[in-house]
Formats: sequence, C-alpha cells, structure tokens
Amino acid sequence: MLGGACTYIALAASYFTKTDIVAVVGDDFADEDTALLALRDIGLEGLERVPGKCFFWEGVYSQDMNDRQTLVTELNVFAGFDPKLPAAYKTQPYLMLGNIQPGLQKAVRDQMPELRLVGGDTMNYWINDFRAELLETLKGWSFLLINDSEAKMLSGESNLKRAAEKIRALGPKILVIKRGEYGATLFHEGGYFSVPGFILEKLKDPTGAGDCFAGGFTGYLASRGVGVDDATHEDMARAVVYGSVMGSFCCEEFGVDRFRTLTRDEIEGRFEEFRKFTAF
Amino acid sequence: MLGGACTYIALAASYFTKTDIVAVVGDDFADEDTALLALRDIGLEGLERVPGKCFFWEGVYSQDMNDRQTLVTELNVFAGFDPKLPAAYKTQPYLMLGNIQPGLQKAVRDQMPELRLVGGDTMNYWINDFRAELLETLKGWSFLLINDSEAKMLSGESNLKRAAEKIRALGPKILVIKRGEYGATLFHEGGYFSVPGFILEKLKDPTGAGDCFAGGFTGYLASRGVGVDDATHEDMARAVVYGSVMGSFCCEEFGVDRFRTLTRDEIEGRFEEFRKFTAF
Repeated sequence: MLGGACTYIALAASYFTKTDIVAVVGDDFADEDTALLALRDIGLEGLERVPGKCFFWEGVYSQDMNDRQTLVTELNVFAGFDPKLPAAYKTQPYLMLGNIQPGLQKAVRDQMPELRLVGGDTMNYWINDFRAELLETLKGWSFLLINDSEAKMLSGESNLKRAAEKIRALGPKILVIKRGEYGATLFHEGGYFSVPGFILEKLKDPTGAGDCFAGGFTGYLASRGVGVDDATHEDMARAVVYGSVMGSFCCEEFGVDRFRTLTRDEIEGRFEEFRKFTAF
Repeated sequence: MLGGACTYIALAASYFTKTDIVAVVGDDFADEDTALLALRDIGLEGLERVPGKCFFWEGVYSQDMNDRQTLVTELNVFAGFDPKLPAAYKTQPYLMLGNIQPGLQKAVRDQMPELRLVGGDTMNYWINDFRAELLETLKGWSFLLINDSEAKMLSGESNLKRAAEKIRALGPKILVIKRGEYGATLFHEGGYFSVPGFILEKLKDPTGAGDCFAGGFTGYLASRGVGVDDATHEDMARAVVYGSVMGSFCCEEFGVDRFRTLTRDEIEGRFEEFRKFTAF
C-alpha cells in the first residue's frame, strides 16, 4: 500500500499548513494514492513520475511493536533519484527532509536559499557509513529529529544531555530525540522539554509514526510563522506535542489509513488530552 | 555497602514524613549504617538484629545502565525472616512493602488494621513462581508499583491501558508503572497521568531508584494526610513526580551516598524543574 517518509510527513503537515512534496514514484503509483494526497490539498508539482516501480518496503513487527525486521527493500525508481525543485518551491520558508542519502537532502536544501526553518531525519545506516556526508549536510539544518540510539551513535555519547550538546554543535540548533512509545525530548539553546508518549488503546501499525511526528512538528511551526531564530520555547514544546499527537494517530490504523478520516478537531482534542495527562 | 529495598524506601520517605522500618539485619550491620538512618530520624524499633550476615547482592550494570546482571545473591539472615511489628507500628495509617515474598508482605499488612493507604512492589520471580500467593496479597493493597514488563507479565496483556485495567481489578485501585529512564505512568479510577524521566547529567548507579520512587510516592501522600479513598488525581500525580525526583537523586551517587547530603530544598528545586521541562 501507499507509504514512504514523504507521504507520512506531508499528510501530517497538511493539517497545519499548505504542503508541497518533492518525490519520485513509478508507473505503479495508483490514482487512489494521488487522490488521498489531493484530498489533503498536498501540492504534487514536485512529484516526479518515471518508468519502473515505486520504492518498496516490507517488514514484520515484534509482538509488542517495538522492533521490526525488514523482509524486502527494493529501491526501484528511488535508485536514480535526483530531486529537482519546481521554481515555486525554491522560495518557500519551511523544509522537512525525509530520511534518505544525506547528499540528496543537501542538494534539496541548497536549492532553497530563503529557508527560515529546515531540518530532517536520518538513520543508523547514514550515520555509520556516510558520516562525512551527513556531517556536511547537518551544517545547513536548523533542526534534527532522531531516536535515542541514533543520537548516541551520532555523538558517541551515552549520556543524553551530553549527546544533545555535541549534536547541536554540529549545526542543528534544535534537536528532538524521539523515544517511540516513551515520548520525545527537545533540546535547544534555551532549555529542554520532555513529553511522555500517548498510551494508545489500539496500536495497529507504527509504520510512519516518526515521519508523522516530523510532519506535525514542522507543520505546526510553519503555521505559527516562526523560524529557527525566533521560535520560542513554548512554540517548540507545542510543536513536539503536535508531533506526538500526529505520530499517535498514525499508529491507530494500518499504513496511511488513519489519514483517510482524521480531522483537525480530533487533533486538537488529543492535544488537550496531552495537557490533561501531563499536568500536575 | 548499605543497601536493600527497605533502606532506600525509608531514606526517600523520610524527607516527607516520620518513617519507621521493619527489617532484619545480621551482626555485620555497621554503626555507620545505623547512623545514616538515625540522621534521617528513621525509627529502628522494628529493625531486628540476628546472628549471621546481612542479605547481600552484587551485580554489574550494562554500559547504558539499562540492564544489570546479578553476580551474587546471598539470603543470609533474610532466609528465616518473620517480620514482627512493634505495638506502636500496628496503628499507623501508611505502609509501603518492599519487594519480598508476597506471603511476608501479607503477614505485615494483616497486622495493621487501620491502614489508610498500603501498597508495595513485586518482581518477575514472584509473578511467575508465586502467582497465587501474590494475587491473594494484592487483594489487600491500595497501590502497586511495578515496571512495564512486570505489568505485562502480571496481566497477560501487552497493551498498557488494558494491562492497567486488569491489574486494578486484582485489588490495587492505584497502579504506578515505572519505566526507568523513561518516567512513570499512574492509573486510577479517575484517569491517568504520565511524567517523563528526569534527564540526569550524572548517572552513577541506578540501584535503589525504584525503591526511592516508592519512598517518595508514599511519603508525599502520607505528608498530605490522604488515603486511598480521598487522594485526588492531583495528589497522586504529584506523588508520582516526587517519586521520580527521589529516584533521580538516588542515581547520582553510588549506593545510598546521595542521601548523605540531599536536602529538602534540593528536592523542591527538582520538583519545580519537572514542572518547567514538562509544561507546554
């Protein structure tokens, strides 16, 4: 079914701000996939269609959903991807880069000179095997979203506070460490913020939850009109909570299905629930 | 060095309320150990001294301190322990039972008919191999403090909300699930509450942190004078935060060393820090 970092990020962000995507798909990309993106008013001008098949991933989750094992990864049309931005994209102020080869992330970022806030995701594979390329890329980011173990791997530090300091020195002034079901922690120059995870009644499929976090986080900050230099602690903390809200919804149905019915009212309702179960 | 569930629980609770202990030690229990407990005004009338050696535990922690491996466990004087309460203890309103054989916990609880709030800790060993005895014991408790995996083991439920419901049906109206560095979650009839973990700059030794949580939690509720029937959501949520505060201090030094210098002002300072890094 439809999936991919770009899809989840865009779907989540679209509840907060007008969202456009840059991506590549094959000729097996279905009309109903386009229809779902269009339903959320996601701009598809940067969606490149080339002969061949879409990127494909298949995996199986452990009983408690905390681990997953990849069964199949087919790069397909992703293999020769060279992201080209439509002219209208180049002056946009906000950019969220999904997990992909750091050099490609940098190539996109370099086409957008007017960014007020830019960040992205990465993973253990790039941290270990493409470290120099990743470090060069990170210099141009205002925020980085990674998980606990990636933060430790990138910084070589097991203490989270020291890991955060070292990572922030690499470029991204804002660091969000995602901790799956345990929540997320934000580090920035002025302090830090932690939010516990939402306890789901129904956990069907965690695929894409981290990307939905990224979409909610970036989308909320874009909706506030703030950039890396003027976002307040409160802006960033709320962005982390909206990210958590979007990640939690994502897990409730298989794949992108939750976004077929999700409303902004449900999002605000869950944001208020976060307030309620964290206040003391 | 000095250790044990009772020691940590009493040290932590002593910052909130007058605390008395029931325990057994051997003739190797040192004067400086008694002195530390006395420094915190902990009542030792129920501290039984018998010939032989104290219970002894030795273990080694993983690099990230999230796992530990037991090297040595010697029951020593613990083997024949039959807790007898001094008369003055029997009419006390608050009781926190450290991790030990459920039948012994029950024997202590049954000697105290006037309890307003009683609870305790347990572990995988009792859940698996003494299940019937544990279930009988839990019927008489108002709260239970366990970790994630123990909650799943006890309830046979991998979803935390459903696990909490099943466990609360066993007796304890109040359930706190401890999640180590990730914080803690409270479930009770009127709702739930989560607090993220405190991010330590210095993590020296997590031994006893769960017991310090229990001491802070129970001690705070005792200081408020509330019982299982009249504690509000706010009382219990704050008790969870004070528990987290005490657990976090415990980790900063080896064994019980942090309690040689810890002050109530430091405790209040960290409580306020919890407020600051969780507000949004």
